Amino acid sequence: MLERLREIVGTAHVLTGADMAGYDADWSGHKRGTPLAVVRPGTTQEVAAIVKLANETGTPIVPQAGNTGLTDATEAGGAILLSVGRMNRIREVRASSRIAIVEAGAILSSIHDAVAEHGLIFPLYFGARGSAMIGGALSTNAGGSNVLRYGNTRDLCLGIEAVMPNGDIVDLMRQLHKDNSGYDLRHLLIGAEGTLGIITAAVLKLHPAPLATATAMVAVPRVADALDLLNRLQQETGGAVQAFEYMPRAYMETYLELSPAHREPFEGRHDVNILVEVGAIAPRDATPDASGQIPIAAHLEEVLGALFEEEAILAAVVAQNEAQRSEMWARREAAAEVITLHEPYADRDIAVPVDRMQEFVDAVAAIIARLDPGARDVSVAHLGDGNMHLGVFPTRPDAALCTEIGNAVEDAALALGGSFSAEHGIGLSKQPSMIRYKSPTALAAMRAIKAALDPNGIMNPGKVLPPV
Amino acid sequence: MLERLREIVGTAHVLTGADMAGYDADWSGHKRGTPLAVVRPGTTQEVAAIVKLANETGTPIVPQAGNTGLTDATEAGGAILLSVGRMNRIREVRASSRIAIVEAGAILSSIHDAVAEHGLIFPLYFGARGSAMIGGALSTNAGGSNVLRYGNTRDLCLGIEAVMPNGDIVDLMRQLHKDNSGYDLRHLLIGAEGTLGIITAAVLKLHPAPLATATAMVAVPRVADALDLLNRLQQETGGAVQAFEYMPRAYMETYLELSPAHREPFEGRHDVNILVEVGAIAPRDATPDASGQIPIAAHLEEVLGALFEEEAILAAVVAQNEAQRSEMWARREAAAEVITLHEPYADRDIAVPVDRMQEFVDAVAAIIARLDPGARDVSVAHLGDGNMHLGVFPTRPDAALCTEIGNAVEDAALALGGSFSAEHGIGLSKQPSMIRYKSPTALAAMRAIKAALDPNGIMNPGKVLPPV
Repeated sequence: MLERLREIVGTAHVLTGADMAGYDADWSGHKRGTPLAVVRPGTTQEVAAIVKLANETGTPIVPQAGNTGLTDATEAGGAILLSVGRMNRIREVRASSRIAIVEAGAILSSIHDAVAEHGLIFPLYFGARGSAMIGGALSTNAGGSNVLRYGNTRDLCLGIEAVMPNGDIVDLMRQLHKDNSGYDLRHLLIGAEGTLGIITAAVLKLHPAPLATATAMVAVPRVADALDLLNRLQQETGGAVQAFEYMPRAYMETYLELSPAHREPFEGRHDVNILVEVGAIAPRDATPDASGQIPIAAHLEEVLGALFEEEAILAAVVAQNEAQRSEMWARREAAAEVITLHEPYADRDIAVPVDRMQEFVDAVAAIIARLDPGARDVSVAHLGDGNMHLGVFPTRPDAALCTEIGNAVEDAALALGGSFSAEHGIGLSKQPSMIRYKSPTALAAMRAIKAALDPNGIMNPGKVLPPV
Repeated sequence: MLERLREIVGTAHVLTGADMAGYDADWSGHKRGTPLAVVRPGTTQEVAAIVKLANETGTPIVPQAGNTGLTDATEAGGAILLSVGRMNRIREVRASSRIAIVEAGAILSSIHDAVAEHGLIFPLYFGARGSAMIGGALSTNAGGSNVLRYGNTRDLCLGIEAVMPNGDIVDLMRQLHKDNSGYDLRHLLIGAEGTLGIITAAVLKLHPAPLATATAMVAVPRVADALDLLNRLQQETGGAVQAFEYMPRAYMETYLELSPAHREPFEGRHDVNILVEVGAIAPRDATPDASGQIPIAAHLEEVLGALFEEEAILAAVVAQNEAQRSEMWARREAAAEVITLHEPYADRDIAVPVDRMQEFVDAVAAIIARLDPGARDVSVAHLGDGNMHLGVFPTRPDAALCTEIGNAVEDAALALGGSFSAEHGIGLSKQPSMIRYKSPTALAAMRAIKAALDPNGIMNPGKVLPPV
């Protein structure tokens, strides 16, 4: 097997033993099963040859991109671990039609840089953007901080190229905004976490870069008030809100614990703290007026001022310069550090309908009061998407208690019509939730599709779909 | 069979013989095959019982919604024709979270009316909106005039409920903006034209209604100039363009033929005529200034004025009132009448990358010059989507020539990376194009999915996928 893999990609690109370090662990360094080998193809044709070999020999194969996932979706014990990292070219940026053509191993921040030269953005932003690769983002349908305005990864992709489990290359690299010619295989493969094939390239949709942004921290009494704030801001600005991030009091306090250099956003402390950012796309919202004011920032200050007068908000601070803006974002982007600061912790990736977030937050408080009064809730949320990243520190180091809290929170979310996986996917670590919650009829349809496209079960086995 | 169907839905809702009139013909009255019966279930449970019966007895079953499709996708000779028309409730409109929950038989214009009360729009607009039903729009992933700003039907749907080919009800009625819990069955069923199951209900995404619109007719020298115009308008208005419709000179002339009451948009005649509409979402773009001017209209006039000075456009007229706006839209919405005015005609539903539209128009002109110089090209296009509805009247009544022209145009589109079906779907009538153009590997994957979910081949057989 190793010999045949070396023939396909060259000796230098088949790694074994200690050379597999990094590939066989998650981002936090936690070791997983040992792969048969790490194979680093350089072209789609090489990916196809490897998959064909795996299919013919019944060898499991696990694709990996930036290895920044949070669900152990690229655990590859005993399998060929196929890294797309060498296939990292940004083949083309076409400004006039606002598309970029990229290979699966292109790192998000490289794509950001490449399109910035054209005054454009690829609006997929999250903490790991410096190492996450587009192939992985597509395979998990990643979300992030700008989904409110621009959608999830699947909404930012016009076309893909993929190698199917039998080694066939499927070319769906459409640069089209409309194409109704058969089943949408693109949307099926996006979010399938490499269990139905390996995405090797993509046509991405770009957007004009905001000409100016205005960023603020706002405190409101309750989460429901935050949603009123969001609706009011969207209405006043014509939908210009590009981020709307929730941080509770305990999150802010834990963040301050991390470093004495961190500053508080407001003079007093508040329960519901919101980071809001609006972006100007039209020149007249971004062109300074006679007094040097940027209209979109002035407008945000004006709306927040009116809301303060109405007593709809408790406090507000608008960033006056890039340093202040960075400080606001640093607070939010520390979430991965904050939520994992004290082990063990309960963490989940929850979605609920946007207008049921207050009920959900109340339910989480009730669960904590019932199971471990005094536990600290440092959850953050992409509030405009109804997506909360739960983080709870129990009062005692009890992993079973963490699981109990996490499960109770998922129960509460599902009771509100929610989901146990908003943007992280299923991988291995969410299998228990798939088993608990996913409708048997939906699972049956998914299993039928999996069996039809991957009859030998070689593609990332054991991920997404729980064993029957 | 009829007896068992009557037991499920009641005698009144099983139609046979002459009572099937309308259901067994397309919108133009053209008769298709004779169904076994037309069955009109009133609930999802009844749909499930009918499908289960069909599956057990191996009886073909064809779902039908508003019967406004253009590809004979609901041809039902010898099959149970299942009409969702009685399942037409708009169950809920939730303004604060901007969603509507509707049944498959809800007519688009009823949905438009129901959400308008809340200051919202469901932005799926096309000519047949007074009879097209949402179930059909989802099944074909319909497009229309506002795709540029709001996307296709699939982009306007958060969740669906569907009856699978085995009679299982799959509840994917999520009101969530993020849900990564397994394969996206919703996107698989949307656009599958009822061949993988029957969509019975949906959660729709709503948008704020524009507070004001400004509509104009603009003439430019070439199609490439129209794209420059679009990019310039998008840039100046921050993406407020909601429609950008192309009509060539011959289209305008044929429209004038239809009725002497019709008026010309400009004093002179031009080759490339554009209907452009911008919509204000923010209050300050829609609030009249001291002189009574609506800012968005003033801004459009100003931008067009500057472009005229630059000689980038040849002529422009901005609608001064609702009557003038209606006149502009009537001209565009007559397309179905115009393109079918003289039989026989060549018609196709083409997509190309937006920035290759000029090349495509040139290719069409070359094809006409080669095959039938003097043929009249009355094609219209959703230019901002790269979607042309080809319409060509040959100089002689020769159906074979029409097919030859149509096929040559599809060849040209595909050579530019385009599609032979932008928004109408495949049904029966696009089968020859599926056979000619669709990649064998993509077709193989689609066939595997079809066989897995519908092993007895009962769901709308013969549609979408060509016979092996």
